[in-house]
This record gives sequence, C-alpha cells and structure tokens, in this order.
Amino acid sequence: MSPAETTTDVVAIGNAIVDVLAHAEDAFVSDLGLAKGSMNLVDADRSAQLYERMGPAIEASGGSAANTAAGVASLGGKAVFIGKVADDTLGTVFAHDLRATGVDFAVPPASGSAPTARSLILVTPDAQRTMNTFLGVAAEISADDVDETTLKSAAVTYIEGYLCGVPATVDAIDKAMKSASRVALTLSDSFWVSNQRETFMGMLPGVALVFANEAEACVLYDTDDVEAAVRRLSSSVATAIVTRSAHGSIVVHEGDRFDVPAHPVGHVVDTTGAGDLYAAGYLFGYTHGADPAACGRLGSAAAAEAISHFGARPQVDLAAFVASLGL
Amino acid sequence: MSPAETTTDVVAIGNAIVDVLAHAEDAFVSDLGLAKGSMNLVDADRSAQLYERMGPAIEASGGSAANTAAGVASLGGKAVFIGKVADDTLGTVFAHDLRATGVDFAVPPASGSAPTARSLILVTPDAQRTMNTFLGVAAEISADDVDETTLKSAAVTYIEGYLCGVPATVDAIDKAMKSASRVALTLSDSFWVSNQRETFMGMLPGVALVFANEAEACVLYDTDDVEAAVRRLSSSVATAIVTRSAHGSIVVHEGDRFDVPAHPVGHVVDTTGAGDLYAAGYLFGYTHGADPAACGRLGSAAAAEAISHFGARPQVDLAAFVASLGL
Repeated sequence: MSPAETTTDVVAIGNAIVDVLAHAEDAFVSDLGLAKGSMNLVDADRSAQLYERMGPAIEASGGSAANTAAGVASLGGKAVFIGKVADDTLGTVFAHDLRATGVDFAVPPASGSAPTARSLILVTPDAQRTMNTFLGVAAEISADDVDETTLKSAAVTYIEGYLCGVPATVDAIDKAMKSASRVALTLSDSFWVSNQRETFMGMLPGVALVFANEAEACVLYDTDDVEAAVRRLSSSVATAIVTRSAHGSIVVHEGDRFDVPAHPVGHVVDTTGAGDLYAAGYLFGYTHGADPAACGRLGSAAAAEAISHFGARPQVDLAAFVASLGL
Repeated sequence: MSPAETTTDVVAIGNAIVDVLAHAEDAFVSDLGLAKGSMNLVDADRSAQLYERMGPAIEASGGSAANTAAGVASLGGKAVFIGKVADDTLGTVFAHDLRATGVDFAVPPASGSAPTARSLILVTPDAQRTMNTFLGVAAEISADDVDETTLKSAAVTYIEGYLCGVPATVDAIDKAMKSASRVALTLSDSFWVSNQRETFMGMLPGVALVFANEAEACVLYDTDDVEAAVRRLSSSVATAIVTRSAHGSIVVHEGDRFDVPAHPVGHVVDTTGAGDLYAAGYLFGYTHGADPAACGRLGSAAAAEAISHFGARPQVDLAAFVASLGL
C-alpha cells in the first residue's frame, strides 16, 4: 500500500482511565466486600475511601479500548482513540501516554466538570485484578467527538462494551455504529453484560467481530455452557472471539473454528489488560491480512507480554516482540 | 523494648518527588544533551518539553530520602519523613504512597505556590536512569517543618544531600543538624557534590554516618583514587559507607573496614533507587543493633530488590524478603 492510501487500522472508542495499581492480599479484597476479578463502579467518595486504605501504588494509563489502541500502535498499526479526559493532571498523563505510544488522540479535554477517570486496581498474589473505577468525565463522549470521516476510512471501529447502555454516550455510540465501515465490540465485563444484555443483543446485527471472555459470552446468552454460547455468538456475527485465560482462545470466523493456544508466560504478574491486548494483537493481524488463527496467535502473544508485568500497556515494542517470536 | 519505649528509628529529610519513568534508548538521552546516569534540575518549561518528547510512562512516588524512609518502614522500622508537597494531585499521590508504606509523614502540603516536584526519569536498556527533576515546591522546607522533639528521640536523622546548600532549606537543615541525636548524610549526586563541596565539608564534623557512591566520594576530596577518598571520608566520620554498584560496598566503622558484596540479581531492570534502598537496609540494621557488615548486607539486599523492577520503592514486603534470605 502506498503512503497516499495509508488509512487508519483501528479506531477505538472507550473510557479514558488512569489506573492506580497496588498489590493487595486476598483478605483485603474480601474485607472491602469486593468480588475478586470484578470491575466495580464507584463514586468520588468511595474512590477516596478506597485510596486511603489501599497500599502504595503506581499510576499507569489504562482504559480497556485505550489499551487496545496502544497495543495496535505498538505493533506498528495506525490507531485512533476516542474518549474523554478532563483538563487535569491525570488527563494530561493519559493523553501523553497514549500519544507517546503513537496513537492519534485528538478529542479535546473537558474543563470545569468532573475529573479524569481513575481505576483503583488491587492486584492479588494470583495476579488477578479487582478494579474500582471512578468514571468522572470519561463517559461524557458526545456525538461531536466521533469523527464520521475517520470512522468511514478506518478498517475497524472497536467499541468498548463498558460504554454501551450508558446514557451520556448513547449518541456517540449510535453515530459510531452508523459511521463505521466495520464494527468490533468487546463485551468488557460479565456483570455489565448481565445489566445490559438487551443493549448488547440489539447491537449485534451491526457488529462484525465480538470479543468476549467465557463468562461474558455465557452471560450474554444466559447459559453455563461455553460451547453453546460460542455457537450462538458465532451464528450472530461474522467473527466470534472467546478468550479463555490460560486455555487460549476460540475463534469462529464464518463457520470455521480455530482453537488458539495461550502464549507461554514465565511468571504471570498482573492480568490487567490481558483481554485488551489480546484484542490489539487480533485486530492488528485482522487489519493486515492475517488469517483468523494467525490473528489469534498475535492476540495471545500481545496478551502474554501484558500479563508479565505490572500495568496494562505494553512495556516493550510489541512489533519487535512478535517479530522475535516469528509471528 | 516495650511499646512505651518505642521511638523513631529514622527521620529522613529530603525532596518529595513523584517519579515519571519511561524506557528510552541511549540515542534519545544523548539527543537531549543529557549525560546518562546524571540528575539534572530543570524548570517547568523544560520539564514540559521533555515530557512531550518522552515515551509512555508510569508514575511512582520517589525522592531519595523518601525512598529510604519507605524502605526502612517496609523492613519493619519506624520511619518519619520531612519534605514538602503541594496541595495537588501529585502531592496527594506522594503522601498516600509514603503513608501506605507505613511512614509517618505529617508536614502539611503547601497551597497556592509551586506544584509538587516531579522527576522525568529515562531508563536506558542497560537499566541506568537519567533524571530530570523539576523541584517545584519540594525545597521549600522550613525550620517549622522540622520537629525538634521527633529528631531528638529518633535514633538517626538522615539528610538528603540534594537539600544541602539550597537557600530555601538552609534553616531547616541547620535545625535538623542541631536537633538530631545522630546525623546520617547521603552525598546524593557527584555533580551536586562538586557544586557544594564546601557545604558538605562544613557539615561533616556534625555527621556520624556518610553514604556516598564512589564518584561522590572522589569528587568530595577532588581525587580519582577511591581508596584515598574512602580513607579521608572514614577519618572524618564515625562510619563511612561507599557503594560500588555491582561491586558491593565498603563500610569503614571506627577504623574497621568491611568489604560487602553486592546481592545477586537475576535481571537488573532499573537502577532508580538503588542507593536509597541500600541506605534503608543499612540504617534499619544500624538502628536494630546489627554490626556494620550485617548492615551492609541488609543494604545490598534491599538495593537488589529495588533494581529488579521499574521504580524506586520496594514492591514486596522487605521484612519478609530479607527474612527469606536469612538476614
């Protein structure tokens, strides 16, 4: 492809969040009344209370779709992020980190309203993360923030499920669904899926690729049978991708099924961002002509890098990393 | 010791700084005109320019003496930190992280003046760190911030060399030198030592323990001969401790010399905080009755943990870590 034809690979729309990551014991998580591995929305007061109680932390830019955009850019793809920060310190940090990774992020910060979102993430010794997200201004994405021309010219528009069904973002998501040449959707969180099942089911006819983990896929179809959920999901969309943690992933593309192994990891430190980076690897492959099984392997490799360290975003040049693996 | 007799082990006085850490190639560091491994003071504009150019980063609380205080607390010691943050996001982060580690930090934040200090740290593939520190409000430590009673009752008051010779802190350092039952001093940085040689030489008669790396010790005595510098330093203070990176450290206590090996590290990721955590291990041992060689070994172990990950502060419970080593 000549430079003149170069266009966007992935537009990602999601919550712009700075993660605040701390190690925590299992007992601390349960004392707070939290289900390990869950994502919990909290208000400003609860966020402050939790911060007061949690251990020493590091701050690292996060946000599910933003992590995916960063992964695509780190792999050498052209990624755009649409999301909302405030004109504050964390907003500056978020915008810096995303742009420094090579992602185009042009949505202006909001001022005078709610602060930039932060997610207090407790990482237990088993590397599971339990998230407590104060959304702040993140959901206030307007239709004006969604540039129709960019979405039309992009190979894929990737929508974060956390935004689906949120009143403040309805217009933006509607416009994205209508403008995008092709929509990929991540179901984001099983509790959110159970809360918004009708919203997600209503979107599926307009979606080409769905990313879900086993729990999310099962909750969407109200079943305990993963295989049944995979069958139903793959009959609804062209490409159904179900991630299975250490067991790898299942990709069903137009009736063809591929079982993709997980990439080996020496020591799993923090699973924050695993699904986001899997999607980054998959979408990078998808927008560069790879077949579904190869896309899945790229997803597994990118996820493996993310879980080998604290924080969700890649800490190495992913393009060099996957090249070193021969992918 | 009964609880009623429990007092402070270490009062640490230093710059309150949040580190902004990013990986960088050697060429990037030299393109910026920076000497690799150096600490550079920058103003707000230069800090913003560097931030704009540097890669995606993580934020982690730092500050040399604050890292030492955090290390002492993580080892199970009682530590107090004296330093100045502003009433802003980074100030909140700094105070949270230090208190969450168990350090007593009671100095009120400044408001309406300069912001909390941040250090943009470029970590090259050889794990060296090059620091660009915008001091903001950090040096504005007043004599009122130094509580005489606390210093008198503490076993050691540890003074960060970066504060020595800074006009804004002169009164605070004078009061600390006069109030402390015993003073430990770190020379902090060889460029700073060359700039402030008279200040440091003037302080030595009131100092019991000096921590320096080889370059700092040599610059203090304007010599290239490390052994000569060690001899002169150890004739000036009761305990001279000279760290030598991978070569371990030299401890000379009242004429007795101990050569302490470095603690083995599998993979050195980031040397930020190595000297600070060595001092933490040493001072924890010193305030708990260990002999000089054992203090040095505790320093080596704490430093080894710090350089095995990104960021200066301990990521594990250091008390459990050194116990697992049989120290």
